[in-house]
Amino acid sequence: MTLAPLTATATGSRHGSDVTDRTELIRRFTRSAATTDSPVTPNRAILSWLEENRRTFRHEVTRIPFADLAGWRFDAASGDLGHDSGRFFTVEGLRIHTDVHDWMQPIINQPEIGILGFVAKEFDGVLHFLMQAKMEPGNINSVQLSPTVQATRSNYTGVHRGRPITFLEHFVPPTAGQVLVDSLQSEQGAWFLRKRNRNIVVEITEEPPELPDFRWLTLGQIHRLLGFDDVVNMDARTVLSSIPLGPRVEDQGAYQSLTDVLSWLTRVRATSELSQRYRPLREVEGWQLTEDRIRHREGRYFQVIAAAVSAANREVASWTQPLFEPIGLGVTAFLVRPIGGVLHLLAHARVEAGLANVAEIAPTVQCCPDNYADLPPSRQPRFLTEALTTTGSLVRYNTVLSEEGGRFFEARSRYRIVEVPEDFPLDVPPDFAWISVHQASTLLRYDGYLNVQARTLIAALLATL
Amino acid sequence: MTLAPLTATATGSRHGSDVTDRTELIRRFTRSAATTDSPVTPNRAILSWLEENRRTFRHEVTRIPFADLAGWRFDAASGDLGHDSGRFFTVEGLRIHTDVHDWMQPIINQPEIGILGFVAKEFDGVLHFLMQAKMEPGNINSVQLSPTVQATRSNYTGVHRGRPITFLEHFVPPTAGQVLVDSLQSEQGAWFLRKRNRNIVVEITEEPPELPDFRWLTLGQIHRLLGFDDVVNMDARTVLSSIPLGPRVEDQGAYQSLTDVLSWLTRVRATSELSQRYRPLREVEGWQLTEDRIRHREGRYFQVIAAAVSAANREVASWTQPLFEPIGLGVTAFLVRPIGGVLHLLAHARVEAGLANVAEIAPTVQCCPDNYADLPPSRQPRFLTEALTTTGSLVRYNTVLSEEGGRFFEARSRYRIVEVPEDFPLDVPPDFAWISVHQASTLLRYDGYLNVQARTLIAALLATL
Repeated sequence: MTLAPLTATATGSRHGSDVTDRTELIRRFTRSAATTDSPVTPNRAILSWLEENRRTFRHEVTRIPFADLAGWRFDAASGDLGHDSGRFFTVEGLRIHTDVHDWMQPIINQPEIGILGFVAKEFDGVLHFLMQAKMEPGNINSVQLSPTVQATRSNYTGVHRGRPITFLEHFVPPTAGQVLVDSLQSEQGAWFLRKRNRNIVVEITEEPPELPDFRWLTLGQIHRLLGFDDVVNMDARTVLSSIPLGPRVEDQGAYQSLTDVLSWLTRVRATSELSQRYRPLREVEGWQLTEDRIRHREGRYFQVIAAAVSAANREVASWTQPLFEPIGLGVTAFLVRPIGGVLHLLAHARVEAGLANVAEIAPTVQCCPDNYADLPPSRQPRFLTEALTTTGSLVRYNTVLSEEGGRFFEARSRYRIVEVPEDFPLDVPPDFAWISVHQASTLLRYDGYLNVQARTLIAALLATL
Repeated sequence: MTLAPLTATATGSRHGSDVTDRTELIRRFTRSAATTDSPVTPNRAILSWLEENRRTFRHEVTRIPFADLAGWRFDAASGDLGHDSGRFFTVEGLRIHTDVHDWMQPIINQPEIGILGFVAKEFDGVLHFLMQAKMEPGNINSVQLSPTVQATRSNYTGVHRGRPITFLEHFVPPTAGQVLVDSLQSEQGAWFLRKRNRNIVVEITEEPPELPDFRWLTLGQIHRLLGFDDVVNMDARTVLSSIPLGPRVEDQGAYQSLTDVLSWLTRVRATSELSQRYRPLREVEGWQLTEDRIRHREGRYFQVIAAAVSAANREVASWTQPLFEPIGLGVTAFLVRPIGGVLHLLAHARVEAGLANVAEIAPTVQCCPDNYADLPPSRQPRFLTEALTTTGSLVRYNTVLSEEGGRFFEARSRYRIVEVPEDFPLDVPPDFAWISVHQASTLLRYDGYLNVQARTLIAALLATL
């Protein structure tokens, strides 16, 4: 992140072409992905290390009345739920108007941009990534594997009055490492208002201290862990998705040119109506505030709860906070198929309530089937049947994963990648498009093209290639 | 924008690699840029055609009291200035909090995404672009050259009850042309809240009707017109900036890798505070509402005025509307220099009040010197002296251009591209970076990387290469 000294450039540029630079980076990542075990942290030691940390970081989460939240209160005028410091996040109301619907809902407003960062380092010429066994209150199993650093700006500027963030210095000048990957990416548009995080990988050469809750793993080892339910957390998955790999994802002939793919998304963004207006939380219609939850009047979608968290070893030892608790298990799936020998994903340009840019590329299916239980087949989510009923070797990925446990209480979804036969129609509705894996990987280099659910599935897909 | 029929893909993909596709597109654009005159519209006929249209579309703009606006009113509760239809735009208040300042100001909220689109067509194997001689009320000279279509969604969905938009059909399925360029780009962050437009070029093969206010020009011809004051309008310039050219902008060694450039901007976006909160216009501190203007208490920055427009030939014949009138002539400049034989721009990652993504890449200098007149040298904008005092052959571009005349009244800036000597420091403040022309051109393929002032200068720079 720092500029090269003058001497390095006096005789010319220090870089080759952008294509050359990128190719070299992909070569190094690919070598790490091909390394499926490592003496640095042998596979046989990983799950026991995770279990050990689950014991160390065991914690209890108790539902409490909102009145028992410490430091959090409903604003007297607006009813918005916020922290006394004015930091962290607020739960506000939002009125959303789209081409087809008009509704209000509670939403999380957290305008600051957090860091989701991996520290990488070569051991014996192979890049390893420093993973943290991290407790989050919303995790169904307390501890999951996170990036090296997972911090909101409130965290790292000390608003929480807790301990310093371990390894944060590698992401902040003047001691920052060499950046390999760095972009801003969105979080769940259904629950967050314009939330973005910095997804970053930095390479270091020095030897950091060994800590019991951190381990160095190759990409190949992390890919294997993606096959387990609820092990690799959402923040790790989104950063992993932005790591480009080859040669299986190289720039081959695609069904549509990248120009066409960009234009397809631009068209949906430009022609879809998405009006997002703040509403005081107390005026949000269709939602009920009780002593201990804010719930939809039909019990659908999600509820906002208050929780007391007691844990042995976090930045602060115990605290209370609001959490969003989704109703039901989600289904998140990409249909994939080869076109002309090149693997393609069926992408959906999906408008979501809180997105900053109207629509992002989402998986083919992204829903909670419970919300559609009463509706006839014609109103079921498109492609849900194909995503759920395919079995056998066509199912390339099928794992239950958790959303971020710092904001969401036991929010889980079944993530699936399902191959459809070659006679599956290439002609799809106008808000869907077939994109190649290479095109998805290219777009992940830039801000705000793929939503967080799509990024999880890209990480999973890269693990299967 | 439509998918290829099934038959075209049954035997494989219809595209080569993304790199191949892009290279072919650049070849065609470059050929058009190298064509500096054309029998389709000879150079000697262009300025007389423009003058003829200035006579045809002559119009009068009169300042009026806000009370005389038809269809526009101040909301009784908030004081926001809006249209009775709820469309077009509103003038609201915004409270902005950054790392260094906290202020309020009026701002234009126009959440819909407009189209800025060129229709292109080959004549004798050379791409020509259909330019419109378009009247806008804020233009100092009534008519400037615009893209083929320049329309808000309110325009093209008929909220203004005016005439249909000429040539709009080429941008809308089912008759849309082949897309060559398509992205969403921001407008002025100082005056607009999260405003974006679709910047698009489509190629057609059919022969459209000849109309007196439209002419086909090559890129080379348009580039020449960019050398005249107030001729090529802002909407044309922003689309032109997104047209990639070679070989002078090809992927050569750059001072920093594209990864480093992306990381530099990501760091500024992630670590700069930018809180944007709606305030009712009547509560905006530091601004005064009079009978016929909303002005800053010290007379700085800009004022909001009301105008009556009478014109002979527009979608509707006469109307009233609010306009933003900046105070003073702006200065907008890139310092450039070769590094290792490759031309680089000194880019500024600039936080602006209304941007959707905190900061975008701005020119080295972007200011209105009048606002700094009373301040000591130490508080003058950085690099302003270099931008203004350089003379002779080092000045690569020096032209006064207008901002968009549909919202802004006689908003003009002196746009300059100034080459600095080889001993000019490569080590620059952390919110500045040297980027190659190729890197700027790559980023323009994606949404929201370069601000509108930088895009004007990129268009001008491409014209000089």
